[in-house]
Amino acid sequence: MNQNRLSIFALGGVNEIGKNMYVVQYGDDMIVIDCGGKFPDETLLGIDLIIPDITYLEENRDKIRALIVTHGHEDHIGGIPYFLKKLNVPIYATRFTLGLIELKLDEHRLTGDTQLVEVHAESNLTFGEVGVSFFRVSHSIPDCLGIVLHTPEGNVVHTGDFKFDLTPANHQHSDIHKMAEIGKKGVLALISESTNAERKGLTPSEEMVGNHMDEAFLRADGKIFVSTFASNVNRVQQVVDAAIKTNRKLALIGRSMVNVVQVAMERGYVTIPEGMIIDARSANELAPEKVAVLCTGSQGEPMAALSRLSTGNYRDMVIYPGDTVILAASPIPGNEKDVSRIIDNLFQLGAKVIYGSGSTTGMHVSGHGYQEDLKLMLTLMKPTYFIPIHGEYRMLHHHRLLAESVGVEKGNSFIIKNGDVVDIENGVAVQTRSIPNGDTYVDGVSVGDVGEIVLRDRRQLSEDGMVVIVITLSKADRKIIQGPDTITRGFVYVKDSEDLIREINRLTKKTINDLQAENVRQWNVMKQNIKKSVGHYLFTQTKRKPMILPVIIEI
Amino acid sequence: MNQNRLSIFALGGVNEIGKNMYVVQYGDDMIVIDCGGKFPDETLLGIDLIIPDITYLEENRDKIRALIVTHGHEDHIGGIPYFLKKLNVPIYATRFTLGLIELKLDEHRLTGDTQLVEVHAESNLTFGEVGVSFFRVSHSIPDCLGIVLHTPEGNVVHTGDFKFDLTPANHQHSDIHKMAEIGKKGVLALISESTNAERKGLTPSEEMVGNHMDEAFLRADGKIFVSTFASNVNRVQQVVDAAIKTNRKLALIGRSMVNVVQVAMERGYVTIPEGMIIDARSANELAPEKVAVLCTGSQGEPMAALSRLSTGNYRDMVIYPGDTVILAASPIPGNEKDVSRIIDNLFQLGAKVIYGSGSTTGMHVSGHGYQEDLKLMLTLMKPTYFIPIHGEYRMLHHHRLLAESVGVEKGNSFIIKNGDVVDIENGVAVQTRSIPNGDTYVDGVSVGDVGEIVLRDRRQLSEDGMVVIVITLSKADRKIIQGPDTITRGFVYVKDSEDLIREINRLTKKTINDLQAENVRQWNVMKQNIKKSVGHYLFTQTKRKPMILPVIIEI
Repeated sequence: MNQNRLSIFALGGVNEIGKNMYVVQYGDDMIVIDCGGKFPDETLLGIDLIIPDITYLEENRDKIRALIVTHGHEDHIGGIPYFLKKLNVPIYATRFTLGLIELKLDEHRLTGDTQLVEVHAESNLTFGEVGVSFFRVSHSIPDCLGIVLHTPEGNVVHTGDFKFDLTPANHQHSDIHKMAEIGKKGVLALISESTNAERKGLTPSEEMVGNHMDEAFLRADGKIFVSTFASNVNRVQQVVDAAIKTNRKLALIGRSMVNVVQVAMERGYVTIPEGMIIDARSANELAPEKVAVLCTGSQGEPMAALSRLSTGNYRDMVIYPGDTVILAASPIPGNEKDVSRIIDNLFQLGAKVIYGSGSTTGMHVSGHGYQEDLKLMLTLMKPTYFIPIHGEYRMLHHHRLLAESVGVEKGNSFIIKNGDVVDIENGVAVQTRSIPNGDTYVDGVSVGDVGEIVLRDRRQLSEDGMVVIVITLSKADRKIIQGPDTITRGFVYVKDSEDLIREINRLTKKTINDLQAENVRQWNVMKQNIKKSVGHYLFTQTKRKPMILPVIIEI
Repeated sequence: MNQNRLSIFALGGVNEIGKNMYVVQYGDDMIVIDCGGKFPDETLLGIDLIIPDITYLEENRDKIRALIVTHGHEDHIGGIPYFLKKLNVPIYATRFTLGLIELKLDEHRLTGDTQLVEVHAESNLTFGEVGVSFFRVSHSIPDCLGIVLHTPEGNVVHTGDFKFDLTPANHQHSDIHKMAEIGKKGVLALISESTNAERKGLTPSEEMVGNHMDEAFLRADGKIFVSTFASNVNRVQQVVDAAIKTNRKLALIGRSMVNVVQVAMERGYVTIPEGMIIDARSANELAPEKVAVLCTGSQGEPMAALSRLSTGNYRDMVIYPGDTVILAASPIPGNEKDVSRIIDNLFQLGAKVIYGSGSTTGMHVSGHGYQEDLKLMLTLMKPTYFIPIHGEYRMLHHHRLLAESVGVEKGNSFIIKNGDVVDIENGVAVQTRSIPNGDTYVDGVSVGDVGEIVLRDRRQLSEDGMVVIVITLSKADRKIIQGPDTITRGFVYVKDSEDLIREINRLTKKTINDLQAENVRQWNVMKQNIKKSVGHYLFTQTKRKPMILPVIIEI
């Protein structure tokens, strides 16, 4: 390792949305930024969470100085419990972000061992040869940071997730003055998020949502339900404010809503008057027009509060005809169908439902900057080198075009893959090497034990089920003394398939007898032949390819 | 059955998008309208297609006079081969629709037996006491019909799928004059599609797409690829026209593109100059700017042409940097992720990609009328009773509100479920009874043999895999003489899980020995106990619940 080299790479977050993890290294000092999780798509059967493969970090554990967390969203903190089980690294984050990390560590019973260090936008830290300072950015969760890494080679800026909102909720302004100052001093490399790089214009302000929320509360007759991300504390505050203006008490429904609002209240990120919060049962004793409800489930999660309310399966609260339900969030791609199902159910209950993309209802704005926001950041920072992150390839691609449009030189933008390293030495940046990286799957309590083989089997089982064929052979002469017996699951409805099963058994018997006649006695050859003949037969009969599992027992 | 009663019901298509099938019955004369398929969502593991349960039709086979098909989309014709295997009913449809039905019957080797009757917008038919006439509507496929059923009780109108487009491609205008006339004569009940009942305004015209297509072709340097639904013959014609204007030859890629364009050419629905169509290999011999390609795969289907082109896996054609790819279709909800993956791949190849919703790129317009289109239909028809169809509940709900806004009396709209029957007698409509209905699953070649039990097993297998435990007992004394042997698939990576397997075998042995000691010898009790003890152990160890399958053999 060249002592004077600056290296930048991602272990998650590029060419994908989720599991963000970036590393800036100078010489022997490595700073890790964020440690996120990612939700599996429907092809990853049974997988609960995807986290970055941190093999490379484990191999370099003596060099890691800090994990700095930009903000408290799942795609930036979701991997922390698993990271901590492998690496004991101090974590630096703001007050609210630490609150959410602590909730997470509690769940995993990990509190106690971890060094959690609170920082704020004016903190300055030093890790070996690397100095760290921060700047405040606006996003859809409080207390977000951008990071400046001061290295002998030059300054590297990581934006965190951001938008520019001149009228944010809770006065959490982007610190444009500080950003301008950083840019003026010179930025060698900018690492900037790309989520909305495809969307033209400037992100709408949170102020718009507040106004729409107030109007909806004024117009509503019955109870009002608002569903949003618990971590969107700005949205929570807007609901609180609208409820105050219309003399409604507020019930919180859903575990994460209760927990996160608790953290936000304790730490001063949301202001709720004494006595305003009531529990769901007391809410039922009030007149409907005196009740507002904040609930989880805006993404259509089947077990969350809104889903259960929409089917009448929430014990302590019922939605009556005439009640209003506001979905104050946009469905994340992949969740549209689940959200739609809930909307259908709510309409069937007779509720008035306010839904749709934020732009049509005014009940949601994105927390990620659009093209003009991204250009403003690029213009403020005036970086020599640019690394777009936090996005699928098409977003990174568009972000690069934006960078070039505001003056980043062609050839100075690096669209990297996870594991690709941008090395900067004597002012010259190159990307030529890669380090180990990948997806680590969490399934139940196990991390990393489910890989491609297990998933391939699950896929086959999920498509066409399985057929287990048991045969007992005599050790003496290898003749069949019992079976074949066939058991199927997930393949066909057994009661209607007696002929099929009979033919499987006949084919199995014939295959074994034929092999015996040829003096073939290896189990694996027998099994292969049974799989082949039965598989062929079943495919011609059913056009299905169940997993076929011959079990041979010798007595 | 009351001889003078008019009955209307759906066997598919309400509270869902897909598997459209509607029935209008007067006395003993039943007319079936459409017979569609529906694609399964990700919870229906291994299922290929969903079709309506037609048990009720089978029970009333002597009353069915005709299957009339409004147009040739899959959600209106996809169930026909399965329908015909149960019911031999003559099919009435327009020339182009019949072409697509014939393609489908060819695939299922069903041609020959079926009576296919060509109709056009001016045809008049009589089935017992029911007369049938038609009117032309615009949609995203040629040759679409609305249907008027003339019954002694009054006229029933079924709109088919429609929008009003005053400048459609290929001059396939909605026949507004005829609709006005029908409305003037009196419509007892209107059955109208609701797909876009949530969208404000009027659907944009096909003309817009034509103009944008021309512009994109003029600007492009390299090859141009356009991906769209093969059945969207209007879009195909627009691509042909743009290619003619820019002197490009046209290659067709993808089986359905080749087949459907063939049908459209033969029957005169698309006009392509002699010699313009070339095959993919000859296209490679031309200069890139002389080549346009029409391909399937606009919904991100992994095996379709565009997907394979995007990963460089299409044998006869390669996308080079600078080539243009136009996605001239909107992703159907649920397909967004697959489409995004392809766009990412195309950008990585260096292609210019024109994508996004139709409204942002101008390369696609919906074939389904927006709110103002729906109101115009309601206004033209002035129905006494209104039944919104072809939509999820929220769409039907909004369509009812639209109907009331243009004068349909409150209480005269019926939001039905599949199977609900609206009976009209002496001018009075009531919905009080329901008939058998449901989803029939097609899996491979089998229809209806996969039900909830099989699907439940597939779900469990897909989540956590399976554990097969084989034990051989002695018939004489029921002692274990072989095993337990444990085989897992889709559960854990076996090589890393030897301890787990050893403990499964130990627990199984212990369970059997304990039961022996208590003189319990029933197999099912043994199996239950093994499942219980092993299941409990595995859940505490892994938080997973694999399917546990004990196999006991007695020798």
